[in-house]
Amino acid sequence: MPEGGKVTTSVILAAAGASTRLRAEVRKPYIEVAGEPIFYHSLELFTSLESLLEFVIVVHPLDRPDFTRNYGAQLESLPVPVHVVPGGEHRSESIARALDAASADADLIAIHDAVRPFTEPAVIRRVVARARETGAAIAATRVSDTVKAQGRGEGSEAPSIEATVPRRGLWFAQTPQVFHADLIRRAYRQFGPDPDATDDAELVERLGHPVSLVEGGRLNIKITTREDLELARAITAHVRGARTPG
Amino acid sequence: MPEGGKVTTSVILAAAGASTRLRAEVRKPYIEVAGEPIFYHSLELFTSLESLLEFVIVVHPLDRPDFTRNYGAQLESLPVPVHVVPGGEHRSESIARALDAASADADLIAIHDAVRPFTEPAVIRRVVARARETGAAIAATRVSDTVKAQGRGEGSEAPSIEATVPRRGLWFAQTPQVFHADLIRRAYRQFGPDPDATDDAELVERLGHPVSLVEGGRLNIKITTREDLELARAITAHVRGARTPG
Repeated sequence: MPEGGKVTTSVILAAAGASTRLRAEVRKPYIEVAGEPIFYHSLELFTSLESLLEFVIVVHPLDRPDFTRNYGAQLESLPVPVHVVPGGEHRSESIARALDAASADADLIAIHDAVRPFTEPAVIRRVVARARETGAAIAATRVSDTVKAQGRGEGSEAPSIEATVPRRGLWFAQTPQVFHADLIRRAYRQFGPDPDATDDAELVERLGHPVSLVEGGRLNIKITTREDLELARAITAHVRGARTPG
Repeated sequence: MPEGGKVTTSVILAAAGASTRLRAEVRKPYIEVAGEPIFYHSLELFTSLESLLEFVIVVHPLDRPDFTRNYGAQLESLPVPVHVVPGGEHRSESIARALDAASADADLIAIHDAVRPFTEPAVIRRVVARARETGAAIAATRVSDTVKAQGRGEGSEAPSIEATVPRRGLWFAQTPQVFHADLIRRAYRQFGPDPDATDDAELVERLGHPVSLVEGGRLNIKITTREDLELARAITAHVRGARTPG
């Protein structure tokens, strides 16, 4: 990491998920919201980042052939190079491939879910700034609801509560998750790829390196279910309505 | 509980929260969304319940004088009697007062957050049916995000992750929370009111009585922050747009 000098950031966009929960005709990142595919909204969030070096998009192998044909022109209008990488068997393997494809010149690696198109650019800047300082930082939001633990060994047929879990100090991990490039590469070499790791910070945590938490806001939602998609359309319509002049 | 016969349900609407998080001019339940105050949307969700006996609304003591003046006419149009009770120092004390005010004839007590106006009536019916069967049931939704525990003893200035928490079997409690009337009254006599109890199920759990979990859906949100309010307006505009014929 150059002292006080120019820092460069590679942004990895994770778009390779199988979308099994949504059961849509096209995979989630390609569903259009407000006239653009969701992944493109997510990409655009990073274009104002001063340190932006490149995008690495991990797509589902089945989507790879159509990807450049469908979106090539759109991607060329972006201010930095875009590399497209076919994803692996699971999320962690996809990110490992993206890390291999990212430039060796990148000081920071920012990993973002392609289906998280509402992250505020100010949040992105804060996570990047914090990661630059501490080595690792993620957007996250405090758990404010009451959490219940279901009885162990129960099926999903008729679940019941075993205990109320103290929520104090609990956060939900979101993205972006931003790391010094050498740190996240070391974490993946040592502990990854791991199908059980639900985010990238987890592998860095295993190295014993502290990962900072930056408030990401409750609108930084991940579009996972059909209801989320409805919500996304509602948010976009609302935000657009509020922002459109006259 | 009458065997197979007619069951009656008292609905307690918790509207006494101090709304400190929203810092609005009026308390959250009274903010208008789509032309009606939020609490009224929440009340209306229960009017199609076959077993409905009465509403007990717990309001903030400061709101008590204006409440009947502002909403009396609206409340009279509801199909069952409405009792208005001033709230206590904290949520649990407010519910204790509402339980005292509820009819001794109620077989079931359903407790619902006034600021949860999007619960689907089908969810309400399912929770009521399950509570009738098992004694206690709540709407809840599975935790699908990665959960991180913040390091102990850290301030909110620069929090960092201590561990990733296994999310399997974790649920968020929502409302409605529905109980056999004698069970919830016993739980409150024995363990309540308790300022640390973040929901009513917790007191029933302490009795050792199983509390069933019923999938409440992710749109069953609680309007807590200004962002939630934005989201609520967006959802309402969207749902209205979709439902308005022609």
